[in-house]
Amino acid sequence: MIISMKPGATQAQIDRVCTRIQEMDFQVRSIQGDERVVIAAVGLGDVMHAIGVLRSVEGVENGVPISAPYKLVSKQVKSGRTVVQVGGASVGGDAFGVIAGPCSVETEEQIMACAAAVAGSGAQFLRGGAYKPRTSPYSFQGLEEEGLKLLRKAADAYGLYIVTEVMTVTNVQLVAHYADVLQIGARNVQNFPLLKAIGSATKCPVMLKRGQSATIKEFLLSAEYIVTNGNPNVILCERGIRTFESATRNTLDINAVPVLNELTHLPVILDPAHATGQRSLIPPLVRAAIAVGADGVMVEIHPDPERAWSDGAQSMTFDQFAKTMDEIQPYLQLWRAGRPELACVPA
Amino acid sequence: MIISMKPGATQAQIDRVCTRIQEMDFQVRSIQGDERVVIAAVGLGDVMHAIGVLRSVEGVENGVPISAPYKLVSKQVKSGRTVVQVGGASVGGDAFGVIAGPCSVETEEQIMACAAAVAGSGAQFLRGGAYKPRTSPYSFQGLEEEGLKLLRKAADAYGLYIVTEVMTVTNVQLVAHYADVLQIGARNVQNFPLLKAIGSATKCPVMLKRGQSATIKEFLLSAEYIVTNGNPNVILCERGIRTFESATRNTLDINAVPVLNELTHLPVILDPAHATGQRSLIPPLVRAAIAVGADGVMVEIHPDPERAWSDGAQSMTFDQFAKTMDEIQPYLQLWRAGRPELACVPA
Amino acid sequence: MIISMKPGATQAQIDRVCTRIQEMDFQVRSIQGDERVVIAAVGLGDVMHAIGVLRSVEGVENGVPISAPYKLVSKQVKSGRTVVQVGGASVGGDAFGVIAGPCSVETEEQIMACAAAVAGSGAQFLRGGAYKPRTSPYSFQGLEEEGLKLLRKAADAYGLYIVTEVMTVTNVQLVAHYADVLQIGARNVQNFPLLKAIGSATKCPVMLKRGQSATIKEFLLSAEYIVTNGNPNVILCERGIRTFESATRNTLDINAVPVLNELTHLPVILDPAHATGQRSLIPPLVRAAIAVGADGVMVEIHPDPERAWSDGAQSMTFDQFAKTMDEIQPYLQLWRAGRPELACVPA
Amino acid sequence: MIISMKPGATQAQIDRVCTRIQEMDFQVRSIQGDERVVIAAVGLGDVMHAIGVLRSVEGVENGVPISAPYKLVSKQVKSGRTVVQVGGASVGGDAFGVIAGPCSVETEEQIMACAAAVAGSGAQFLRGGAYKPRTSPYSFQGLEEEGLKLLRKAADAYGLYIVTEVMTVTNVQLVAHYADVLQIGARNVQNFPLLKAIGSATKCPVMLKRGQSATIKEFLLSAEYIVTNGNPNVILCERGIRTFESATRNTLDINAVPVLNELTHLPVILDPAHATGQRSLIPPLVRAAIAVGADGVMVEIHPDPERAWSDGAQSMTFDQFAKTMDEIQPYLQLWRAGRPELACVPA
Repeated sequence: MIISMKPGATQAQIDRVCTRIQEMDFQVRSIQGDERVVIAAVGLGDVMHAIGVLRSVEGVENGVPISAPYKLVSKQVKSGRTVVQVGGASVGGDAFGVIAGPCSVETEEQIMACAAAVAGSGAQFLRGGAYKPRTSPYSFQGLEEEGLKLLRKAADAYGLYIVTEVMTVTNVQLVAHYADVLQIGARNVQNFPLLKAIGSATKCPVMLKRGQSATIKEFLLSAEYIVTNGNPNVILCERGIRTFESATRNTLDINAVPVLNELTHLPVILDPAHATGQRSLIPPLVRAAIAVGADGVMVEIHPDPERAWSDGAQSMTFDQFAKTMDEIQPYLQLWRAGRPELACVPA
Repeated sequence: MIISMKPGATQAQIDRVCTRIQEMDFQVRSIQGDERVVIAAVGLGDVMHAIGVLRSVEGVENGVPISAPYKLVSKQVKSGRTVVQVGGASVGGDAFGVIAGPCSVETEEQIMACAAAVAGSGAQFLRGGAYKPRTSPYSFQGLEEEGLKLLRKAADAYGLYIVTEVMTVTNVQLVAHYADVLQIGARNVQNFPLLKAIGSATKCPVMLKRGQSATIKEFLLSAEYIVTNGNPNVILCERGIRTFESATRNTLDINAVPVLNELTHLPVILDPAHATGQRSLIPPLVRAAIAVGADGVMVEIHPDPERAWSDGAQSMTFDQFAKTMDEIQPYLQLWRAGRPELACVPA
Repeated sequence: MIISMKPGATQAQIDRVCTRIQEMDFQVRSIQGDERVVIAAVGLGDVMHAIGVLRSVEGVENGVPISAPYKLVSKQVKSGRTVVQVGGASVGGDAFGVIAGPCSVETEEQIMACAAAVAGSGAQFLRGGAYKPRTSPYSFQGLEEEGLKLLRKAADAYGLYIVTEVMTVTNVQLVAHYADVLQIGARNVQNFPLLKAIGSATKCPVMLKRGQSATIKEFLLSAEYIVTNGNPNVILCERGIRTFESATRNTLDINAVPVLNELTHLPVILDPAHATGQRSLIPPLVRAAIAVGADGVMVEIHPDPERAWSDGAQSMTFDQFAKTMDEIQPYLQLWRAGRPELACVPA
Repeated sequence: MIISMKPGATQAQIDRVCTRIQEMDFQVRSIQGDERVVIAAVGLGDVMHAIGVLRSVEGVENGVPISAPYKLVSKQVKSGRTVVQVGGASVGGDAFGVIAGPCSVETEEQIMACAAAVAGSGAQFLRGGAYKPRTSPYSFQGLEEEGLKLLRKAADAYGLYIVTEVMTVTNVQLVAHYADVLQIGARNVQNFPLLKAIGSATKCPVMLKRGQSATIKEFLLSAEYIVTNGNPNVILCERGIRTFESATRNTLDINAVPVLNELTHLPVILDPAHATGQRSLIPPLVRAAIAVGADGVMVEIHPDPERAWSDGAQSMTFDQFAKTMDEIQPYLQLWRAGRPELACVPA
């Protein structure tokens, strides 16, 4: 890290900064400058904490970290890309992952119909919520374990893998019993007890959704919580960030795909349903997700979106979904052809 | 709610909207308009869900709710203001609440010194984190139950009430055993299992912090989760929202105080430490909090901020805190004088 | 527009709202409701103003517009799509527009080299700033008319059309004398005197960049200023909005492309250089722009980006640009194949 | 500035960075580090440009400026505070400035009534728009010079000073002929030709409003444009920034007051009318503005807000304004008592 002192900082102030640096497990490497002193330090201490503290020491003007605060998820510790295996399928490898299904599991009939549509389109992953985080306490909260059972039945009937959300530490084992991929929702991106539990208690693949206001750095630190606690099978999912624009439910941060591809070896998928909240906007964004080099997409489908128990506005009908899956085939061909190159991140 | 159809919407489309409205437990009250049809509906259904669904029905242009989605926390169900009793003290009543203490409980010596400083300044609430939500897994995570014990000891020694964070459902009973006010942190504002557990399992007063990207409506819905599950003793805390401005850690949304005073009967306090991240900015914002009509403030203090284990940059020294508490006395006098009027919210 | 009254609003309050509605050139069409009265009104008045006023009238709870505040740029007044002709080329029609060139015109040698690179790649539009809006007064401000002359010379030498910025009313005629497309920069998206002048004084095609914090509605209203003053040749350019994310210079709002395609008949292009600020991120976003259905892209190139007088970090080298133009050819083929369908906006 | 190289950067890359640094008018002061090289440089070049360029040079990981990019507006070049004299009144000195008046000048009767109310309350500044920047081309655009004449007449009749907006370079002399303080609106905060013209063509005091998405650094650079072009009489006005929160028109960034007081010697006022858009929220925010240490406030008043031609929802009635002015007197007493201390900014 680099600490710059205010012009006219005294020697006593500089000495104090150096003492604090050492107390926090860093070594001072150089002290430079005439009118404005700049101190460089390296070490194994907690750099985010140290910068915060040092900024408040008298005589200090600014402090900046040099190395990133995450480690295990960083390109710098693993040069290849992580391919997350989910049974016989994978995300991050040679196949573009398509995850589709209803927002919520509602009935056996509904989830079986969805599974049939997913399998029919050639996708391999069935999504569906059994535990639903809802903004209002008066909205439908999910079928809970009953929903997980229906999901498993439907997935097994059609040879699909399940992606479903776990909302709390006490349910990790239960959900992992039924699911193939554990989803951590956007609202839980900084639910650290949950991240730790999923890191330490299971090796089940995890799809971590970016929070509405999580920076890319914070998003990677949340992934780091999972990996450093023992579970390396993390898929990152950008699902729209909160901005001033109200024409769409959120703003899809498509920049995040190439940025993450430069910073991390973990696979990255996009969720255009939550990023827009509007069914008609999804097909063009699925095409964009492929073209920008994402590893997959997640979309919502429903046999009768106008009667969906949640998120109907952003759920595609089966026909729309099938049409979209057809339309993207030539884009997927280009994606596959470009795959070796995408894997080599530019210097 | 009001649903407006696109110009040229067909009768079949209008009929379909009316059917959907009824299916979702609303009654159509009127259908109006020549070139552009507008449908009004009332009822007890889930209005947020219904608007979402109806916006996706063919022929619909827009849908807007009329009544707020929260109920129990709303001014419309309770005309007076809620005063949250905390032992012999209270928040929301005649006294301006000052909550002060370190970011984290570190050692017995540290928390005892803080408690002495808090009591010496005339404040009644001691804060201190035993379970710490930290962005990085490599940062200090709190002393856990040991921290709670130290906190209780310090509070008891100086006749103070404790405000401390609970991060997960499994810890609610444990933290409530030691604490006087349970804090729900900004990152957990939409941790719905936690909100439900705190609503149903305890009557212990709760301080709910606004999330970095929670709208005021979402913030109130999170409070509604607690109240509707059985615990009416909720204090709201605005602590800065995430914006593009990087000169401060967050942007204090001071507008939220008069807005919340118009919408809800719950008390509202401000946290200028997390809203700025910078010690020197806190005293003027404490004055502003009093003048704008907040019910209290929360600040961080530390015997030696440069050696704090967390949040040192925004922690005041004991001298700064004592000086600030002195300086605000004439403002508090005006606050008390204006109290009867503040209680009457303008039409 | 729809005005909803608070529960318990008096008849006098309702009458007063109706009077105000009529004073502002609207007609009341219906007054509905028992516990909560809802008033619908139509007319030719200024709806944004009227809603603002009515929200402040005693007894009113909320007011919402139904029709969009823009007219001429709306799909509702023109069903086909606008194709902006620029000499023998066009934007919005059958060809994907590629605008490339340096951030600033620096020297004859530089701009001639850029023009050669642009023409060599098959693109038809040369960009380059002669008047530069710079955040700091101490940064290079552009060569002014001398820059325009160099730009014209370079464009003519290679058969290209010029896109260049005009910053102030007093320069419109001068810039229009040299340019083929007048660029209105992001900072001037609400410089209304400039919008009016460009609307009334010239028919020269205009590329209007979205402001960093302009909503899509405001962006369209700014376009409306130009069109309603007499110049229908407007190209919209999304170039990144300002959000909390600091990993990139701005956040590309790619959602805006399909949203604008539903709302307006004007062509829409993307500027991934300003939206990211980072050269390495541009190629994947150019691919995404094509796939999402934009009408073109604008990128920055420079013979020696590290020595560019402005925006070097986001300027591609000629080699990178040529490589990118090669790589996108199969995507452009899909774009052209999908063009008839893209033109039909979903209901 | 400090440039940090990636781990493993080659000597050739380091040499190249040093060459670029020198080409941009900086001197390399030190090159440090073993696994990760850090280069410090000082000089008189354009630091914002240099950082931008260097970040794109191969082998560079990051670059950070150390000194602020603005100079003349900085505390570092002028230790005392700027008091802007406006005739016999001032802003930034011993008196808290209150600027009040209608959004737009509408009629002689209206502006005379407003002036009487302003003078009657003890305020010294009359605001009123004659040139109005309106989001929609179909909204009222102002009375232009006729409005300026009415404003002058009203101000002279009641011994007030005028604050009014100038929107374009061609009108600077005309508006300055009538006005005592030239307002630069939020939408023009980066209209650099206008800033330069107001800097070079007049010494008339200027009130510069912060843009909706201007960072504090950008805001100060815009002020720098005016000062470095010759006009040192700049008053800064924070008027709300654009965030995700939609309960209010904008979010008042009250943090900006103490932050600006640490960075600049220029006076800072707040505009709670535009920051909230809602009349009932203004009185508490005026109190907060005083308590936080602002140099003044600007508010909107109207004889009949429901019939205002613009901004009626945020305009106070004369009664509300008079009541607010009464209520703030004890706060103003505290403000005056604290003035000497406020003038000394904390280290």
